[in-house]
Amino acid sequence: MKMGCSPADAEATAKVFIAAELRGLPSHGMIRIKDYYQLWKAGRINTAPNVRIVHESPSTAVVDGDGAVGMIAATRSMEIAIEKAKTAGTGWVSTRHSNHYGIAGYYSMMALAHDMIGICMTNANPLVAPTLSVSRLLGTNPIAVAIPAEKQPPFVADFATTPIARGKLAVSAKKGEKVPAGYVQDTDGNPSDDPDILTRGGSMLTLGGDYQHGSHKGYCMSAVVDIFSAVFSGANFGPFVPPSVAYLPVLDKKVGEGTGHFFGAMRIDAFQEASAFKAKMDEWIETFRAAKPAKGQERVLIPGDIEREKETTLRESGITIIPAIAKEMEEIAKDLGIPFERKD
Amino acid sequence: MKMGCSPADAEATAKVFIAAELRGLPSHGMIRIKDYYQLWKAGRINTAPNVRIVHESPSTAVVDGDGAVGMIAATRSMEIAIEKAKTAGTGWVSTRHSNHYGIAGYYSMMALAHDMIGICMTNANPLVAPTLSVSRLLGTNPIAVAIPAEKQPPFVADFATTPIARGKLAVSAKKGEKVPAGYVQDTDGNPSDDPDILTRGGSMLTLGGDYQHGSHKGYCMSAVVDIFSAVFSGANFGPFVPPSVAYLPVLDKKVGEGTGHFFGAMRIDAFQEASAFKAKMDEWIETFRAAKPAKGQERVLIPGDIEREKETTLRESGITIIPAIAKEMEEIAKDLGIPFERKD
Repeated sequence: MKMGCSPADAEATAKVFIAAELRGLPSHGMIRIKDYYQLWKAGRINTAPNVRIVHESPSTAVVDGDGAVGMIAATRSMEIAIEKAKTAGTGWVSTRHSNHYGIAGYYSMMALAHDMIGICMTNANPLVAPTLSVSRLLGTNPIAVAIPAEKQPPFVADFATTPIARGKLAVSAKKGEKVPAGYVQDTDGNPSDDPDILTRGGSMLTLGGDYQHGSHKGYCMSAVVDIFSAVFSGANFGPFVPPSVAYLPVLDKKVGEGTGHFFGAMRIDAFQEASAFKAKMDEWIETFRAAKPAKGQERVLIPGDIEREKETTLRESGITIIPAIAKEMEEIAKDLGIPFERKD
Repeated sequence: MKMGCSPADAEATAKVFIAAELRGLPSHGMIRIKDYYQLWKAGRINTAPNVRIVHESPSTAVVDGDGAVGMIAATRSMEIAIEKAKTAGTGWVSTRHSNHYGIAGYYSMMALAHDMIGICMTNANPLVAPTLSVSRLLGTNPIAVAIPAEKQPPFVADFATTPIARGKLAVSAKKGEKVPAGYVQDTDGNPSDDPDILTRGGSMLTLGGDYQHGSHKGYCMSAVVDIFSAVFSGANFGPFVPPSVAYLPVLDKKVGEGTGHFFGAMRIDAFQEASAFKAKMDEWIETFRAAKPAKGQERVLIPGDIEREKETTLRESGITIIPAIAKEMEEIAKDLGIPFERKD
């Protein structure tokens, strides 16, 4: 609110940051506060945007985010998808002129309370090369799908279309560790085990790792995310997606407005009576949970299990913020004249 | 038609078989004729089905395939998705009580002539284990997405959610070749290089290969295909999907009807003026085609390039059927009293 957000938008934004921490994804949590603050100070994100529908049909809309903080544009866009689904059975929204929005899973999960399946995708800073290429044309372009069940907790898939998230490379680099083959390559396209190779022109690989292991399938998925998020909406696609940190300059070439996202909501009872569907999802989940683990493994996971268990633990214990990040937050609070209390 | 198909259904079915051959995917072409014939003789596929909508909303439908040859149910289902999209902006169809339907890409491409994006998925015989498991709970569950452009040929992604298709293992086994790590595992979950390991209780791995390389992301995708195809429609999910060959027995346990598919059609101008979208897709495709190839590579591919080039070649040269398959076809033709001419 001190940065100009309405109370509702400030709350929507805070909720996504906190959800990232609670679900065990701190790479999208408090560590990003400084980036957002610096982007705002540089006039590169809008904290009081006029997020609006610019084109629509009974089951679709294109939303213009007006340069919004990603969470504001994304929350509004997913609400529109849910509204469309109420009348048309499904709702599909492509959003332009937005920015980094945190964890994709959060928006897909907004659909669950409405007995809907939620889908969410976004494009992102180009760091990833298409199969057989060394050009950084794609982001880690995540896909999230949330599906409700009855007695079982919901199925929540939320994954980058690369073998690992960008943040894991940074962690390995800081620890001085090598990474396995199949994550990154050098400027010629040779496999590399150096997590820092992106700083020397290297690139990340798509899910599959190499052509022999189906990296062209990861490339297909990442491309679909990019096209649905940006070509549908009129955002920047592929190599033209703007950086989500202020220390990287705005790109010279634009092919659209800002970052693009894509949202879907599918009303369960547009396909099948909701309670029958959810009972069947229980059966699906129980079947997969009862699968035989590989030797040395204790259990087979359902998408969303790890994040949900983490959230249960952290809601008890509280979230621990590492000192370096707490210090960043304290400085920003001071800048903005917000009281800040540290419990060390 | 000799097997009881209407002329329209016979034509629809033949078109998909021929498309598989033309697009360089003979594993889904003439080699399957015998399987379909035997399933029909065993009374396990219906050549004169009453394919019908059993539930619908403005943008969705559930279709009951009445035990149809997969191509008949799938062609009709995709037509319904396209009709829904004309009025609602998008159309989404989940289909139950169907069977093996050939190449997913064919149905997604039906949308292109309508200036729509086409999507198609199907579940399939369980051969694939979820991450960290050794139980065969999933099929190779493919996803196809076709996106029109203006001057450029369309973007057509069509891929299994495993590193390789099932057919490639069979080819390696016949040649006596080993396969790379990351394709299959033994009954304990150890990596295996034996393409024949499925006959001894082994399983295929999901895209990513192992957990370290993101196989849980391939598992998420495959699971979403299964749920959209079968839980939405009331088909058999996961381990209960019926076999697509007559030499494997019908399963004891059923959790729904037949095999399930999922279809989507999105009208481009439900998001953006069609010519503007298609011009932007040209720009997207040209950007990616101009990417720098890795050392030793000649070019960077757009999804669909290889299949389209194959089709261009084969439309000139004709399709060559290997003698063993031609013989099978000749025998079936004889059984059915159809004249059959071989050009050896």
